[in-house]
Formats: sequence, structure tokens, C-alpha cells
Amino acid sequence: MTTDPVSPPRDPWRDDYAVRTSGLSASEVRALFAVVSRPEVVSLAGGMPAVSALPLDTIAETLQRVMRERGPESLQYGSGQGSLEIRERIIDICALEGINGSADNVVVTTGSQQALDLLTKLFIDEGDVVFVESPSYLGALGIFRSYQAGIEHVETDDDGMIPEALDEAIRRVIAAGRTMKFLYLVPNFNNPSGVTLAEGRRAQLVAIAKRHHILIIEDNPYGLLWFDRPAPPALRSIDEDGIVYLGSFSKTFAPGFRVGWALAPRGIREKLVLASESAILCPSAMSQNIISDYLAHANWTSQIDHFRGIYRERRDAILGALDEFLPSYARTEPNGGFYVWLSIPSNLDSRAMLPRAVAEHVAYTPGTAFYANGLGRDRIRLAFCYPNPAEIREGVRRLAGVLHHEVERADSVTHQLESSTKNVSDRAF
Amino acid sequence: MTTDPVSPPRDPWRDDYAVRTSGLSASEVRALFAVVSRPEVVSLAGGMPAVSALPLDTIAETLQRVMRERGPESLQYGSGQGSLEIRERIIDICALEGINGSADNVVVTTGSQQALDLLTKLFIDEGDVVFVESPSYLGALGIFRSYQAGIEHVETDDDGMIPEALDEAIRRVIAAGRTMKFLYLVPNFNNPSGVTLAEGRRAQLVAIAKRHHILIIEDNPYGLLWFDRPAPPALRSIDEDGIVYLGSFSKTFAPGFRVGWALAPRGIREKLVLASESAILCPSAMSQNIISDYLAHANWTSQIDHFRGIYRERRDAILGALDEFLPSYARTEPNGGFYVWLSIPSNLDSRAMLPRAVAEHVAYTPGTAFYANGLGRDRIRLAFCYPNPAEIREGVRRLAGVLHHEVERADSVTHQLESSTKNVSDRAF
Repeated sequence: MTTDPVSPPRDPWRDDYAVRTSGLSASEVRALFAVVSRPEVVSLAGGMPAVSALPLDTIAETLQRVMRERGPESLQYGSGQGSLEIRERIIDICALEGINGSADNVVVTTGSQQALDLLTKLFIDEGDVVFVESPSYLGALGIFRSYQAGIEHVETDDDGMIPEALDEAIRRVIAAGRTMKFLYLVPNFNNPSGVTLAEGRRAQLVAIAKRHHILIIEDNPYGLLWFDRPAPPALRSIDEDGIVYLGSFSKTFAPGFRVGWALAPRGIREKLVLASESAILCPSAMSQNIISDYLAHANWTSQIDHFRGIYRERRDAILGALDEFLPSYARTEPNGGFYVWLSIPSNLDSRAMLPRAVAEHVAYTPGTAFYANGLGRDRIRLAFCYPNPAEIREGVRRLAGVLHHEVERADSVTHQLESSTKNVSDRAF
Repeated sequence: MTTDPVSPPRDPWRDDYAVRTSGLSASEVRALFAVVSRPEVVSLAGGMPAVSALPLDTIAETLQRVMRERGPESLQYGSGQGSLEIRERIIDICALEGINGSADNVVVTTGSQQALDLLTKLFIDEGDVVFVESPSYLGALGIFRSYQAGIEHVETDDDGMIPEALDEAIRRVIAAGRTMKFLYLVPNFNNPSGVTLAEGRRAQLVAIAKRHHILIIEDNPYGLLWFDRPAPPALRSIDEDGIVYLGSFSKTFAPGFRVGWALAPRGIREKLVLASESAILCPSAMSQNIISDYLAHANWTSQIDHFRGIYRERRDAILGALDEFLPSYARTEPNGGFYVWLSIPSNLDSRAMLPRAVAEHVAYTPGTAFYANGLGRDRIRLAFCYPNPAEIREGVRRLAGVLHHEVERADSVTHQLESSTKNVSDRAF
């Protein structure tokens, strides 16, 4: 028997994985990380916040104070639910989005990603339906797939998910005899579309979900990062029993601590704590204490104002560059957050052309990453959060070059196809 | 309709949880946390390391250096697998246990608990069998239950799991037509028993698992905390393809950072990274950089020596107190780690008597927490890691008082039962 010395050995455990593991695949964004971190590449791909705009000296002081005043406690195991102190501060932050809540109903998690993972573990049996926006956050789709959920995209426009489309989707799912569990929404400055769910639609969606006993998961990492006017009040401010609200310090402070949270109805909160204790024992006491201290001593609201200014400037830079270099391409007009959603000609393939874009030193996330149903080849997510305005303009300039080249290529292929079809026709008749 | 104003409202989502969620229950240890943190209670319950013995000034300097030299990187998202730097340092630590490995095969996780959770998610379909020691770590049993594994305890003595008993258990499971997935072992200074798997048995267990294509999970948080002589080389040093090795900084450094790892065969490692990215995106860059810096600048091996001395002294204190106050009670003789396993009279119930012990201001973990099959009422886990020697002696003195009282009570109940049985007999005949 000979073995190819180049190919890696086959995994001897390949036949032993759980059925659910077949749903696990490399995220299209994560797979890019190695490439796009090269300095010559302008990355419009990852949603990395502009952490260098944080007050590094203030944070260094915070770390010193935490070690001096509560060192042993910060180094030790803590509560599975999270410290009372940070949960109380989280309730203050939630109030900025119109939410009344109790620290007792908050569960601190390893980023809000973990909260969504635990909720999905708690609720989803194979095939249970999760309704999501069209497009929807790729990290959420990955979680839902990993528990074998049935993902149903619901039509979404520039005002967010369309209530009538949700009604229609629910009717289809009921007719098919399937079990419905979640309505998952990123209502503010959506990832990837950048659109915000209109205020009038919020109560409508809440009412529809309530009527059909579907739990809403409101995922809101970007809500405080608005540019021109605040986002409408959170869905959670309309209804308490039917909504789990997910929040995060990753965008308003720093993702390096991995601290997010769920604000959940009591029964769900109790199970969330048990599920989190099973999965990780407890969230990091050090990370929680650092964030609590930062919130107590730093002027964190003015820091968020500062972030808003930075991201607004970058949003303006990317829309300006799109106007300049890709004036005929439709795109969204985000009023907050990190992302613009760009439409490209329907005969292009955003995923297939990505390596060519990276070769031209610009990276983006292909639209296909945000759909569970194969759509998105004619869409691109552009993240404007990390590069500075000059880099953004240069990135869009390069992207425009790639797109124009792709259009020429596609047109020439189409032309050849038409010619060959014509030849076939000539021969046939 | 009237509602009882005292009882909490029923969970409106109670009928919507996934089937697997029925396996989720409050850990007997975690439920005690609130009570045992009261200062008047001597807690022999939780496995909390003696973090106040850490060099707090050195750690404070480490935090400063990390912020000064790599602040923005530490505040940002990082690699899903963990930083290369910490993975290389982890390989150095693994070498202390006789393990040859590559940083490429290490996955950094939110404590080693998360690594076990992800492995279980990757491999376990409902009913798949996991072989565990008897008794076994309660946190592992909780994870296995939460994915609906079938847990099979294998007979264990003072030299760890008995190879012939594993052979026998495998035969039974094969005869029943069930699918076998894991052999889960805490080979060194076992939690809860304190016993260490004898060197000669290690190769035997590895061979048995290999013969039946069962993946070994070697969970080794305590291995470096030996007292009189080092633990035998890790099972992972015998076989690379068939073992996932789990390690942690929680016991040799500090649990407050929540950093552990898995060293896995390549195919499993690839899936572990994807599963971790799905669950939490990435581990904390801040926590990883702090630990990397600490390992680079502090004399961490002599700190581990220091910990060994502290825990050895506490082990001596608890064995001495047990000799003094409970001389007729059998118990293990741990040569490392955090735990002693105490046998109590078989007519007592360690779980039922716990509230009475707490009322006497001493806490422990009932043996039932370490079995999936209902055993353990006549066992108690005593953790000697956290209280100082004087507190340990006082805790054991109180426990002895509770036990003597329980024995009297049980004997008197037995006596009454015998009398009433006698009366019945008198009447019957």
C-alpha cells in the first residue's frame, strides 16, 4: 500500500462524530482571518471594533485597581450567573434602550455568542424552525445549524423584517406540520444588512410571535452605536415574557474580554444558568470585575459617543467611496453599526470572486455567508468599522476594479454562451 | 381565577424546551455556593484553589505589561484556536507530564470544561455510551447528561479504574448493541476520589480502548499538584491518535481567567476549533495574553512548588483530623490534588444530611453528585484545597459531630423499625 506523502492522513474518528456535527462547517469569515490580517490587504471583511480608540491608560488603571482592591476574588471561580455588580450595571445599560429589567434575570456569558449557543441548546430539537431575517447574522446561522435547526429566512426590506412575510412564513411552516421555536432578529443596524427594524413593525412582530407562541431572540450588539438618531426602543421594552434580549460589551467596549449577556424571562434564565454552568462552570471573574470597574470609573457614555463619531466618519467614507467608484450599485444606508450591504450584478458570484479580490488586496464577506438557503451570490457585506477613512476609500477603489473586471469577464462568458447557443440553434434548425 | 401570591408564575415556555434539556439539573455543588460562602461555615465542599497564595504584585505587573506592550491586540477578537504563543507555552507544560505534542494540535478553551462540552457536542448522539470512573467528576457527568449520553460507571479501586472491569463493561454494552464513544478518565488525584491511576494500568486501559475504537478523554487539571512523588506519565504519552488530553490553568495558576485547553488528534482538533468558533467565536485574547506574559516573566514552576507545599500541608491536616475525629471511617490517601473521599456508614444518606451539616457550619459534597446511577449516599467528598489547616481541623470536628449524631438517629430509627416489625410479627403469629 502506498500513501501520498503530501495529503494528510484521514481522520480515524471520521465515522464517529454525532449526526449534528455534519452541520459544522468553516465560517466563510473566519477562514479569511489569516489572509486579511496581512498589512497590504484592506479588510472590509471582519467586524472588528476600533479598539485603538479606547482610553488605554484608563483601562491600565482599571486593571491595577481590580488587582489592588479585589485581586483574589478576581482570580477565583465565581457565580455561574455572573457577578451581581456587573448584572446591575448591565440593567443600567439596558435602560438606555428603553428596557426595564432586573439584575436577577441577567445571565453573563462568554460574549453574547455563548448566550445564543446555550439558548439554542436549550430549545432546539432536530428540525425545529427558527425564523431569521433575510440576510441574517452568519454566527447565528452557524449555531442554529450546529443544533440541526430548520432555518427559515423571512423577507426583509430597508425597514427590516416584513410582518406580512413573517405571517406567510409561519403559515407555510404550520401547514408543513413543523415545530416553531425562535424568531431571531438583529433589529438595529443589522449584521450584515445595516438596516434597522422600523418602530411600527416592532410591535407587529412581537404580536405575531406571541400569537403563535414563538420565542423572540433580540440580538442587539450595535444598538448604542447609532449615527444620526437613536434606534427605536428595544423589542424587549414591548414584551417581557416572550423575548430573550442579548447584549454585549464587545462593540461598546472591547471584545477581548468576551463578556456578553442575556436578559431572559425567569424560567428561561434559570435554565440558562444551569446550561452555562454545565458548559463553562462560570464566566471569567477577572473580565467581569475589569468591566465593572471600567463602568464605575471611566466616562463610558462619552467613550460610546466617541465611538459613534469614529464609525459615523467611516460610514460616510464608505458611502462616499461607493458613490465615487460604484455609483450604479445599490446598497443600504446604515444609520449605525458596522456594515453596508452591497448588491452586485446578478451574473457575478461574490464567493467565487473573493480570492481574486484578496489578490488585489481587498477583502469582504460574500453574501452567501448570511443565508442558509444558497442565496447571496449577488451580495457583499462591507464592514467599515476597522480601517480608517483613507483605507476604506482605497479598499472600495480596489473592490470596484475587481468588480469591473468581473463584469467584463461575465459579459464575455455570456456572450460566448450566447454565441455557442446560437451555433447549436443554427445546427439544430 | 385566583393565583397563589407566594408561588412564582409557571414558566410559559416549559413545554418548549428541547428533549435534551430534561437532562439538565442543578449541580449539587453549585447549589451550595451561596450558603457555603458565609464566613461562619467551614467549606470542605468546593474545589476552589488557594489563589491568595499567588504573587499578586507579579500578576499586577503582568497586567500592566500586557496593556503597555500589546493593549489593542488584547482588547480585540483573536483566533478561534487560541494564540500561537500560549499554545506553544502549553506544549512546554504538557512536556512536564511526559507528553510530546505540537502547538498546532492545541485548542484554547474557556476552561477545560468548555473543551469537554465541545467534545461531547461533537461526538455524542442520544444514548451513546461514555465509560467513566466510579465515582467520576460531577461536571463531566453534567455535560454527558446534557447531550443525553448513556453513562456507564466502571469499577475503580485505590489504583484507579480496573482494566478487567472496563473489559467487562464493554462486553455488556456490546451485547446490548449500544454505540460506545468515550472513555473519560481523571487519572491523577481524581475528583472526587483523590486516587491515581497506577502506571501499569495506563497502558492496559489505552490498549483496551484502542481495541474497541473508543476515544479516551484524559482530563488532567491536577497532575502537576503532586505531594510526595510525581504522577505517572500521562496516558497521552502512550498514544497520540486515540486520546484527547484536557489541561487547565485553573489549578496551577488561577481559575478567574477561564483558560484551559485540549490537545487533540488533528482531525478532532479541526472540528474542535469550528465548534468553539460557533459557540463563543474565540477565547479571551486578554486572558491568554496575561497568562502568556505570566509564564514568560514569573517563576511559575516555583509557584507550582509553592502550591504543592500548601496543598500537602492541607492534605496532612485533613488526614490528621480524620484520624483524630473519625478514626473508624475509611477514606482515601491522596498523593496530590484537592480531595479526600470518605466512606460513611451505609445506613446514612450523605445528601439528606447535608442541610444538617450546614446548620452546624460545615459543608461538603455528597457522594451522590459523582454517580449517574444513584450510588454515593454512603460517600462524602472533602475538599482540602481552600481552608487553612486550622479551619480544616475545625471543619472535620464539626462533621464528626454531625456524623455521630446521624448514626445515633439512624440506629434509633432502625431500632424502632425492628420493634415495630417485631410487633407486627407478634400480631401476625
